[in-house]
Amino acid sequence: MADDAGVVGFIGLGIMGKPMARNLRSAGFELVVHSRSPGPVDELVQAGARRASSPAEVAAASDTLITMLPDTPDVEAVLFGDDGAAGALREGSLVIDMSTISPLATRDFATRLASNGVAFLDAPVSGGEKGAVEATLSIMIGGATEDVERARPLFAAMGKTIVHVGDSGAGQVAKACNQLVVASTIEAVAEALTLAKRAGVDPAHVREALLGGFAGSKIMEIHGQRMLDGNFEPGFRARLHLKDARIVLDTAHGLGVPVPAFEPVAEALSRLVDQGDGELDHSALITLVQRSAEDSAT
Amino acid sequence: MADDAGVVGFIGLGIMGKPMARNLRSAGFELVVHSRSPGPVDELVQAGARRASSPAEVAAASDTLITMLPDTPDVEAVLFGDDGAAGALREGSLVIDMSTISPLATRDFATRLASNGVAFLDAPVSGGEKGAVEATLSIMIGGATEDVERARPLFAAMGKTIVHVGDSGAGQVAKACNQLVVASTIEAVAEALTLAKRAGVDPAHVREALLGGFAGSKIMEIHGQRMLDGNFEPGFRARLHLKDARIVLDTAHGLGVPVPAFEPVAEALSRLVDQGDGELDHSALITLVQRSAEDSAT
Repeated sequence: MADDAGVVGFIGLGIMGKPMARNLRSAGFELVVHSRSPGPVDELVQAGARRASSPAEVAAASDTLITMLPDTPDVEAVLFGDDGAAGALREGSLVIDMSTISPLATRDFATRLASNGVAFLDAPVSGGEKGAVEATLSIMIGGATEDVERARPLFAAMGKTIVHVGDSGAGQVAKACNQLVVASTIEAVAEALTLAKRAGVDPAHVREALLGGFAGSKIMEIHGQRMLDGNFEPGFRARLHLKDARIVLDTAHGLGVPVPAFEPVAEALSRLVDQGDGELDHSALITLVQRSAEDSAT
Repeated sequence: MADDAGVVGFIGLGIMGKPMARNLRSAGFELVVHSRSPGPVDELVQAGARRASSPAEVAAASDTLITMLPDTPDVEAVLFGDDGAAGALREGSLVIDMSTISPLATRDFATRLASNGVAFLDAPVSGGEKGAVEATLSIMIGGATEDVERARPLFAAMGKTIVHVGDSGAGQVAKACNQLVVASTIEAVAEALTLAKRAGVDPAHVREALLGGFAGSKIMEIHGQRMLDGNFEPGFRARLHLKDARIVLDTAHGLGVPVPAFEPVAEALSRLVDQGDGELDHSALITLVQRSAEDSAT
């Protein structure tokens, strides 16, 4: 496997990136890593990876470069900033951005790299830290089929469900759609369970009654249970979902697509973060609904 | 079975009521029926039911009375209006309202009947015409346990998933929660699939990529496919979902529960009906999103 991919560069060893890089190493890939905090780099070096001191240094040593970074400006800086990867990447090499960032910016990055003869895939993931650790991530990919095939052994080492959605940017579009639907469904379940409770009906019974029918969803099952338990250990942090919600809104507004029911959900995420609950699981959206229901009752 | 329930009265032989009554008859229950239109009454009489000319006449002949009517005022009129059932019901008899109506009005009806020694269950259903015909309805029940047990053979003849949610009104509360979540999820899927399409990504691929993860739901599966096919044969008519959406809003507003993400969904259902598409499946909500996306592009 390591032969196909050659040397793999990995930039961004955060909560997601570190276990993903570790899984690549466990699968036998030769790794060169870089990250802002030295701790995770040390850990990967102990596992047999090589250390690099800048994105450019990683790029110069890599045949394939993976980025796993917080947001659009981070990816732009790592690729095109000072000491960025773009200037050091060899013609014929491949960049795989697995961050969740703007689909429109993604297409721009792909175009800029293509002019240097460098291929690009957008491959955001879902499945959270658990999926990253257990190599069971869902990976949504945009880009050319030949590049997806070339990268498949890498994806297989990090994830389970690997879907080639379409051309460049399509992975990020699918991820944005995912985050839209997930947040909207969480809010719907939160509104419904709060309505049940305020109407004097046990929300646990309502959840149960609804699970088998058309209102049934993964969110009703997992996040509905978290809401009943008042257990907001992440999971997926509200703060990160707010970041993704802004990507959804930017994309929708940029394309002139109305998202009238998602707008108040994004506002609610923003309110949750503003009040200091950004580190809670996104299912904590129910606390906002509960609080205003209580306020209106007093 | 017919022994436990005695004579069963059935008022409201519409799209749902007619097949439900027919299933009761097939299960061997002695039936007395009444409906506004004579056609369905004739059909049930041919199947062995007795005809009655008013709600009061049905009530006088019944040990258990089932109502399956369009909306809250219809149930109120049948029970408490001129020639209404309430005056003719025997002490110790049971009324089961299987319509989808206001939870708050439901509790009032139960209280008024209780003062005459008449028991009441609210037992709205989901599963649509198909579920009614095939006796696979989901039935959400509010009321006293002994009354639910007494009615269980009747429910078993009409439905498959029979959940006793809680006290009086709890069935209607669960149904309102169901309709809230279903409509909100349809709108979320509609916004996401339109976003994908306008971003140049095949929405069928996005639906597929999302189905297995946290964005996965019965709505994504069934209604998502209808949206891709542009097939808006009902299913469940937008007009009826609008009626239910108004019940959700009345209940939420009455209890002071904010439903900020459901409000624009209810508005969208209202717009869909206003423009003459009330007979389409509720998944036609996507046409509103598509149309404004197109308008903004021109």
